[in-house]
Amino acid sequence: MNMYDIILKKRNGHALSKEEIDFFIKGYTEGRIPDYQASALLMAIYFQKMNREETVYLTEAMMNSGDVLDLSEIDGVKVDKHSTGGVGDTTTLVLGPMVAAVGAPVAKMSGRGLGHTGGTIDKLETIPGFSVEISNEDFIKNVNEIKLAVCAQTGDLAPADKMLYALRDVTATVDNMSLIASSIMSKKLASGADAIVLDVKTGSGAFMREKEDAFELARIMVNIGNSMGRQTVAVISNMDQPLGRAVGNALEVKEAIETLQGKGPEDLYELCLKLGAQMLVLSKVVEDEEEAIARLKEVVEKGLALEKFKEFIQRQGGDPAVVDNPDLLPKAKYVIDVKTEEGGYIKHIEAVEVGMSALELGAGRENKDSVIDLAVGIELFKKVGDRVEAGDTIARIHSNDEAKTEKALERLLKAYTYSEKEVEPSELIYGIVTE
Amino acid sequence: MNMYDIILKKRNGHALSKEEIDFFIKGYTEGRIPDYQASALLMAIYFQKMNREETVYLTEAMMNSGDVLDLSEIDGVKVDKHSTGGVGDTTTLVLGPMVAAVGAPVAKMSGRGLGHTGGTIDKLETIPGFSVEISNEDFIKNVNEIKLAVCAQTGDLAPADKMLYALRDVTATVDNMSLIASSIMSKKLASGADAIVLDVKTGSGAFMREKEDAFELARIMVNIGNSMGRQTVAVISNMDQPLGRAVGNALEVKEAIETLQGKGPEDLYELCLKLGAQMLVLSKVVEDEEEAIARLKEVVEKGLALEKFKEFIQRQGGDPAVVDNPDLLPKAKYVIDVKTEEGGYIKHIEAVEVGMSALELGAGRENKDSVIDLAVGIELFKKVGDRVEAGDTIARIHSNDEAKTEKALERLLKAYTYSEKEVEPSELIYGIVTE
Repeated sequence: MNMYDIILKKRNGHALSKEEIDFFIKGYTEGRIPDYQASALLMAIYFQKMNREETVYLTEAMMNSGDVLDLSEIDGVKVDKHSTGGVGDTTTLVLGPMVAAVGAPVAKMSGRGLGHTGGTIDKLETIPGFSVEISNEDFIKNVNEIKLAVCAQTGDLAPADKMLYALRDVTATVDNMSLIASSIMSKKLASGADAIVLDVKTGSGAFMREKEDAFELARIMVNIGNSMGRQTVAVISNMDQPLGRAVGNALEVKEAIETLQGKGPEDLYELCLKLGAQMLVLSKVVEDEEEAIARLKEVVEKGLALEKFKEFIQRQGGDPAVVDNPDLLPKAKYVIDVKTEEGGYIKHIEAVEVGMSALELGAGRENKDSVIDLAVGIELFKKVGDRVEAGDTIARIHSNDEAKTEKALERLLKAYTYSEKEVEPSELIYGIVTE
Repeated sequence: MNMYDIILKKRNGHALSKEEIDFFIKGYTEGRIPDYQASALLMAIYFQKMNREETVYLTEAMMNSGDVLDLSEIDGVKVDKHSTGGVGDTTTLVLGPMVAAVGAPVAKMSGRGLGHTGGTIDKLETIPGFSVEISNEDFIKNVNEIKLAVCAQTGDLAPADKMLYALRDVTATVDNMSLIASSIMSKKLASGADAIVLDVKTGSGAFMREKEDAFELARIMVNIGNSMGRQTVAVISNMDQPLGRAVGNALEVKEAIETLQGKGPEDLYELCLKLGAQMLVLSKVVEDEEEAIARLKEVVEKGLALEKFKEFIQRQGGDPAVVDNPDLLPKAKYVIDVKTEEGGYIKHIEAVEVGMSALELGAGRENKDSVIDLAVGIELFKKVGDRVEAGDTIARIHSNDEAKTEKALERLLKAYTYSEKEVEPSELIYGIVTE
């Protein structure tokens, strides 16, 4: 078996065997197959696609390229959740305490990643004293005792995916369904969950701009998970405008707290109920989705989810007082009201532009060496369908730098488009994929 | 401008601009663009193709990546000839003296190259004393005085092509018309000829197996040459069986001498007349093809072409006595008659297998460090359409190694297929492409 023949076979439109895919991933990870052959194969895959079987083989090979975590010491069915990424995505911080409060174990390992804002890990670090660097023993103990722990990813999960992703990123071979699906799923499967809920976002603020593409990606990922014996479900949701109100690390923690108090933005709460319900069903803690949603609403209404959040913070060394007093979170020097110059119904809020505006302020990482400013970000007071008059405050910028504020403001204002006519608020959840 | 955008643009099916192609070739040659981006672009080109304009830009950029020779000190219109390669291709050795004897300047720079047998340079070195390492001054002087000189390629011609070819060779991106055409033409154009005659071979023994592909490649190359101000013509010929009778270096020199004496194989002579006529027409030494062919036949019949060959050998330090006494050429230790076990009409002689058989004997280079055995090779006494009886001698192996002889013999016998029914000898020349 040699790499040339594998490239040629795929280039000519044939399906690769499990042995060929294993040969490629093992050889590439071990440095025997050079980047230039890998990128030629990736481009051939871009054009000739991979079928379902090949995609599963690729995922499995990447999963096995590094550590595969063993969470068997944690009681119950461990369900992980993964979002394909959007703007203002605070779901994990809300979902974790809600699902744990109902009784399903939430053992979450997160990376820091790149993006408009930080990852879950960065957001939690806005809480004074909170540590994401806990030992494996404490991690397992916490999940067993309080059903919830979050730690920074340890171990070397799916290194083949890291290497291939870096290569795809510079060779215009990112956007292929099989490569995207196997990249996401190889890491998820390596992190040891028994079942997986995927939050697949679509729209102008998501990687999958077209709804049909999002469904297709979801079907491929669900097929991978199920083929590898991990029950997998995907929720397809709208990312045409940012989710919730907050875009920025401390601002999103504050928003999570409000949502757990039942006072958060409707769209964020609705999506958390939907995702949380899938997690509870897969964890077998409830009978069906209806019961799951009832239980999730109950723990929020009775304050049990908020209590769970406090308990979780305390366990990982953080100050639970932030929950009652969000002023303890990092605060930006400048808080600027953003006023619209136009009146009308908000027709569209270009999520990517809002995200880029937050990134401009320093809320996220442009590259892996960027330092995040946890305090900065954007609050959105108006969403699609809302009626505004010229001069109304539609958003608020939290900034630590006047020059950056200017740029962010300019970008943010351009994100909005208005309509004379009434605008129907967009649907949030498009559907669920289970097979 | 950056390489990522160039890959993306081609991947998405758009035509690259001259600036983008220049950026790629310059950056790659200078080591600023890594192999993995180049191979991704090559694979994208494989799938999305290049149009005529892009192909011309690519050729020009590769031509300009190194030295571009100046032959302006040579009088007359310098016409170069290039063969896309086949088995038993002795045309240059025959054509050179014929065309020079009619009066057109033949200034040939040749590489050693890889293949079933050596290149023109290797073949000439079978002549005792012959030197291909002559100075530029002598090269120009010889062409001006006797119309014919051949030297080993000096200078760094089209280094971008060398680099890209090596990369294509290991990434399954060789077989794309634009890449093949630009690779050939960039080197030809850099070697300074005023006009070019292409000998494009097609059939089972050629790189272009299908006739339509050969015509397409010819049209692309002719377009490149003409677009860059060098009049270019292509002759498409049949390479379903080896050309002529000899496959091997000294054997081919002997065959060339016989052909110049008017006693050579018909197919080789016919092709040389056709190619030589194109060269004479482009060099403006004759009015038209008809006159050209008459003049070429005349110089052979009157012995002037053979005299030219002797003069040429003497000028470059070789012993012209080989022309009258080919026994002065290197001779192999073992000469083995190859007898057919079957009777019938020869239906096909798989040219590649004959070539591989010669390579087995040591007649060519498998890699650039291989040492060629100039004496060994194969003589073919029967061609497609000939009637043979079991036990007839159909070929002769010239070998210096008994073990290699066995392997070569086995391979050679398998190259033949026979038919009970009469077989029509195949057409030799399929057509000419001038635009």
